Amino acid sequence: MNISPTNPIQNPLFQKIEQVRRRQAKVQDTHITLAHGSGGKAMRDLIDDIFVSNFDNPILSQLEDQASFNLTPLLQQGDRLAFTTDSYVVDPLFFPGSDIGELAINGTVNDLAVSGAKPLYLTCSVILEEGLPVETLRRVAASMKAAAKEAGVQIVTGDTKVVHRGAADKLFINTAGIGIIPRGVNISAQNIKPGDAIIINGEIGNHGTAILIARGELALDTNIESDCQPLHSLVENILHACPQVHAMRDATRGGLATVLNEFALSSNVGIRLYEESIPVREEVNGVCEILGLDSLYLANEGKLVVVVAAKYAKTVLSAMKLHPAGKDACIIGEVIPSPTGIVLLKTVFGAERIVDMLVGDQLPRIC
Amino acid sequence: MNISPTNPIQNPLFQKIEQVRRRQAKVQDTHITLAHGSGGKAMRDLIDDIFVSNFDNPILSQLEDQASFNLTPLLQQGDRLAFTTDSYVVDPLFFPGSDIGELAINGTVNDLAVSGAKPLYLTCSVILEEGLPVETLRRVAASMKAAAKEAGVQIVTGDTKVVHRGAADKLFINTAGIGIIPRGVNISAQNIKPGDAIIINGEIGNHGTAILIARGELALDTNIESDCQPLHSLVENILHACPQVHAMRDATRGGLATVLNEFALSSNVGIRLYEESIPVREEVNGVCEILGLDSLYLANEGKLVVVVAAKYAKTVLSAMKLHPAGKDACIIGEVIPSPTGIVLLKTVFGAERIVDMLVGDQLPRIC
Repeated sequence: MNISPTNPIQNPLFQKIEQVRRRQAKVQDTHITLAHGSGGKAMRDLIDDIFVSNFDNPILSQLEDQASFNLTPLLQQGDRLAFTTDSYVVDPLFFPGSDIGELAINGTVNDLAVSGAKPLYLTCSVILEEGLPVETLRRVAASMKAAAKEAGVQIVTGDTKVVHRGAADKLFINTAGIGIIPRGVNISAQNIKPGDAIIINGEIGNHGTAILIARGELALDTNIESDCQPLHSLVENILHACPQVHAMRDATRGGLATVLNEFALSSNVGIRLYEESIPVREEVNGVCEILGLDSLYLANEGKLVVVVAAKYAKTVLSAMKLHPAGKDACIIGEVIPSPTGIVLLKTVFGAERIVDMLVGDQLPRIC
Repeated sequence: MNISPTNPIQNPLFQKIEQVRRRQAKVQDTHITLAHGSGGKAMRDLIDDIFVSNFDNPILSQLEDQASFNLTPLLQQGDRLAFTTDSYVVDPLFFPGSDIGELAINGTVNDLAVSGAKPLYLTCSVILEEGLPVETLRRVAASMKAAAKEAGVQIVTGDTKVVHRGAADKLFINTAGIGIIPRGVNISAQNIKPGDAIIINGEIGNHGTAILIARGELALDTNIESDCQPLHSLVENILHACPQVHAMRDATRGGLATVLNEFALSSNVGIRLYEESIPVREEVNGVCEILGLDSLYLANEGKLVVVVAAKYAKTVLSAMKLHPAGKDACIIGEVIPSPTGIVLLKTVFGAERIVDMLVGDQLPRIC
């Protein structure tokens, strides 16, 4: 049987073709089903309706199995690429000040930015639990769209998987990102030298505390919001003021203490912190006291630790303070030659104690 | 209190420092705990012991929050980058012929390869369920190592998250990948023209069937193994023989039918398949008959659909047959001007039917 060009209406195959074509590329379901991860029609509609419509850009809309872009224009901006990935499993999905969607963009943007890179392209891969309200996914995608716009990045490719009810908790997101590092910038945890100053751009522990409170397991009520924010333009200001930054890292999971321990180990130096200089909200300290937590280990999602030679510290600090994400920036410590690989804290009482790598877990699923 | 350089042994802070330093960077636990995702000591040990030791390469071992690499050497190989991502949630983790680790490498390698790109760098982000045996993760990482070696790619950065027991099913992996596309190669689902030949590199449906059998829910026993394999060197051979390939895609989730429907829609053409030419194992057809499945929609993890102008078809076919992954290559159909956006199948009985996009789901969690 072939399709006859004459009188096609009477041809049953033609009628079926018309029927196939008439289908709308719009999600009709209110909840995610396994069909949305099948690779078929339902998945394509979900991708078109929720992701492509929100993340719209010329690379993504080609809907190939991979994004592709020309390298030549990038070479005008730098000569090295930064490449990073993070999965986001935060619980709950929405919390004071932010949500998993914004977090998934800013987290990856910040991992690129702290290498000095200008963030360019992101991927978005979701694992959905069967039964997730489509409306939830829509809200998350809209949040990702807004965050991507703010950070000046494009989401250029993605993937959608659905697992049975109970095989995942609602929604996990992975983003990977690419950025271009300007020539001459060489930021590494291995570059730190004794005498360097340690700077942070503001209060620690707000994100971790906000998540903890949002879980509602504690009868606590605070107005602490996550500090989730993109740091790329703050980094730009810092590098503009001082291209010789030694090390930079965002203090996310594991908090400030973890980043500093990583720095001390990577550069084989010691670090001395001054407790009185570290900005922590009273409410965060209060929550920590009640629960036996230490704010130094609480997660942040918009906090940056910068290590520079002491002679540049004031210049960098001034540049940071001019930026909204750096207005509370301050010097919180110094790099010392020994004990190597160790972070010490000079407490408000004048004693000195070791701030060890976090042993055990403080708060799971905070990012 | 400061550390005294004289007689440090009597200094309690010094003793604590020595104690902190003595810890081994080796996973002591037999099962994953929430601490392995905390950002602290346990996570660092897990990463060092399982991932860094297996994936060892100069970029990864810097343990920055992002990988970075120079663009200049890449420019000798091409002028466009391909960038892709996939999450892998296959159930079970180990199945005849392959496992989630090999799949996570080959899947992303193949998504890069089908753009004509030489795959270069991959990320590896895992979501672990509390209680997962560390030995399972070790096996998966070893499998990823072997697959990466075979595909000639480096795993340059990663991420580890742990969720509570019951909040994920054992282990999910996300890999993102970067590859370099040689100059002059322009492969796209939008390039297909009427008259083009459709070629596949071998049997369809083996992966989907292997997973189905491996789940053990059916009292079926076959010796079908997953076809999971990297396709980058087969693609190299194809492009060497014929740089003018119009479109290429690996037929994974949704199977051959889904890829061809995507092609027909993207290029606004029709596609006619010849059922008798499509290589399917008798056992796969048998399983399909028993379960009411259609092998055209069954997943593959090492099957490539190539679309070339008819005049190049024989050249491409010969080049494919010389490669182990292409020895069963054959022409299975042709591109027709209409009906646009529709895939037709000429059955063995001479009738013609529409091969629609998959509606509903056939087999969840096959990749």
